[in-house]
Amino acid sequence: MKNRVIKIFKNIKKEPDAIIILNSIYPRIDENFFYFTGLEKGLFENSAIVLFPDGNIELFVTGLECLSAKKSKLKINLFKNYKEFNKFLRELLSSYKTIGLNYKAISYYDLNKLRETFPKKDFIDISENLLNARLIKDDQEIKLLKKSCKISDDIMKKIPDIVADDITENKLSAEIDYNLIKNGADKPAFDTISSFGKNSAQPHYTHGNVKLKNKDFILCDFGASYKNYKSDITRTFVFGKPTKKQKEMSDTVLKAQELAFNSIKVGIKANEIHKKVFSYINKTKFKGRFIHSTGHSLGLNVHDGIGFSQDNNTLLKENMIFTVEPGIYLPNLGGVRIEDDVLIRNEGVEILTKSPRHLIEI
Amino acid sequence: MKNRVIKIFKNIKKEPDAIIILNSIYPRIDENFFYFTGLEKGLFENSAIVLFPDGNIELFVTGLECLSAKKSKLKINLFKNYKEFNKFLRELLSSYKTIGLNYKAISYYDLNKLRETFPKKDFIDISENLLNARLIKDDQEIKLLKKSCKISDDIMKKIPDIVADDITENKLSAEIDYNLIKNGADKPAFDTISSFGKNSAQPHYTHGNVKLKNKDFILCDFGASYKNYKSDITRTFVFGKPTKKQKEMSDTVLKAQELAFNSIKVGIKANEIHKKVFSYINKTKFKGRFIHSTGHSLGLNVHDGIGFSQDNNTLLKENMIFTVEPGIYLPNLGGVRIEDDVLIRNEGVEILTKSPRHLIEI
Repeated sequence: MKNRVIKIFKNIKKEPDAIIILNSIYPRIDENFFYFTGLEKGLFENSAIVLFPDGNIELFVTGLECLSAKKSKLKINLFKNYKEFNKFLRELLSSYKTIGLNYKAISYYDLNKLRETFPKKDFIDISENLLNARLIKDDQEIKLLKKSCKISDDIMKKIPDIVADDITENKLSAEIDYNLIKNGADKPAFDTISSFGKNSAQPHYTHGNVKLKNKDFILCDFGASYKNYKSDITRTFVFGKPTKKQKEMSDTVLKAQELAFNSIKVGIKANEIHKKVFSYINKTKFKGRFIHSTGHSLGLNVHDGIGFSQDNNTLLKENMIFTVEPGIYLPNLGGVRIEDDVLIRNEGVEILTKSPRHLIEI
Repeated sequence: MKNRVIKIFKNIKKEPDAIIILNSIYPRIDENFFYFTGLEKGLFENSAIVLFPDGNIELFVTGLECLSAKKSKLKINLFKNYKEFNKFLRELLSSYKTIGLNYKAISYYDLNKLRETFPKKDFIDISENLLNARLIKDDQEIKLLKKSCKISDDIMKKIPDIVADDITENKLSAEIDYNLIKNGADKPAFDTISSFGKNSAQPHYTHGNVKLKNKDFILCDFGASYKNYKSDITRTFVFGKPTKKQKEMSDTVLKAQELAFNSIKVGIKANEIHKKVFSYINKTKFKGRFIHSTGHSLGLNVHDGIGFSQDNNTLLKENMIFTVEPGIYLPNLGGVRIEDDVLIRNEGVEILTKSPRHLIEI
């Protein structure tokens, strides 16, 4: 973890004297807290870390988090209330001038409180540096993400066994989450999507009290959170024999995904991938029916920094991990999305999720 | 929902011309978005609402959220990208001067972007007003919270049937989450805690690959998220016959909770409740072993504003909903916590969770 700290300071143009990463109340927890401590469990509300250019980390927690925090083997400052936290922080940082903060995570309210605590210090925004550092996964992160992908993948393979005649979207989602946790996930990575029929045409619909009908698409989009690392996989099935149109939708999405796999290379811009997939689908009869970006980076967050999206011209680098998830959505019929997680290598992509991609009849 | 909007403006001392509630990327979603729209489903990343003093609400969403947003029957501004969002927002607010923002939810980064968009407008913090408005639940909220409590309560009653000889903490947590969703929850309200033995002495521990042993405490702390409203319940069981000490711990916590139930009254300060419970436990042999606050308000968030905590002197009012959750934690043995959700009425508390509270042998 020390290396992660040293690296982040080196990548900041005007190096700050220290960095404060501050958690608020759940769900406003800064995932960088886990990035730098390596802690795998615990809530850590109102906790904080202070980082120094030599790699040192100091933890600030209340008694509630003390046992969990000890697993980090870092120096722990145990505080009783905000007043004491403030006092400890002032003491620790008394001789420093410039403090780096994650402006994308800290609330304006918390920033103003820090300003009161440190009226004479300069704050600088390090959110872009954090984002860029975390885009490139180190060996430990790749290991955890691979395990997270494996957990999700194993459950996706079971979907045809789980789906039964009288199943509802709610029941399927419950089964998926249950199997994820039983299979080693700490929790689902996000709200599981298990949408049937027309509902699958809404990419952000989750699930409802809706029964499966013959010829329905069954779109499953879920992931594992494993030691805080998120995977994200989508497959689309059909209940019964697919129609010609359903088959065409699936085949088109498959080809679009294949195109993305072959296009993702070190040195290419992120939006180039999206543009290729987007224009490919728009040359088919499903023009205008691909309504989101082609993928997003994965890590401690599901949407972990950047995307294969129209406006993003970040250069792809080795050891970035992304989802690749083209889709086609027809409001009155439903949607097909196929989503895999890939690790960018100098040689090309390594696909981390391996469930069959073609349209499976259930 | 219109009434909620009108009320919030009335309660702000220097009334703003409009309020912007802005969502970032999951999990940085402002739950006030759901409070004012009444929307029950959908992710609404990068979405926003603008509120006006006459109760009017305008929604800003991308195509991804459009179908979900339509359920609100509000005016929808559909935007393609941030540039367009910004343009629409500037047009809508061109003739207004003072904009209210939730400083506790908006990131400093997003605030700076709004400042660029509106260099001549004044921003004011309405986070306290939002908090105070949401502390008092209206009829619709009480209905949803009661349903959320009922879902959790029904699962808690099943725990003795779920626990088996070879169960692990992970498996129990998977079973709880599965049953919550099957029973009507949209998802668990937070990371379910199912801790055995010594682990139950860490209030924020969740679960691990740990097998149940004879005489272990089994502490279950979970809740349902139902149409975005969160319940939160804890019970502690023993696997086998409890020791005298385990029984004493449970009896003390029960009496502490009873004391809280009887003390919660309209017009009492929140910290008075905590002080009573705290000093009660500190007069027993378990002095110093109650290490957190006595409860917290519930609503769209699990920690929904204020707590029965040392420093909070908010006056209790009718239609506030709180958890009441004293606990005793002995690091080498484990912990007992009993947590119920209560609605404050003029006549006293209405306890919304009804599972048996005493130490049940499994």
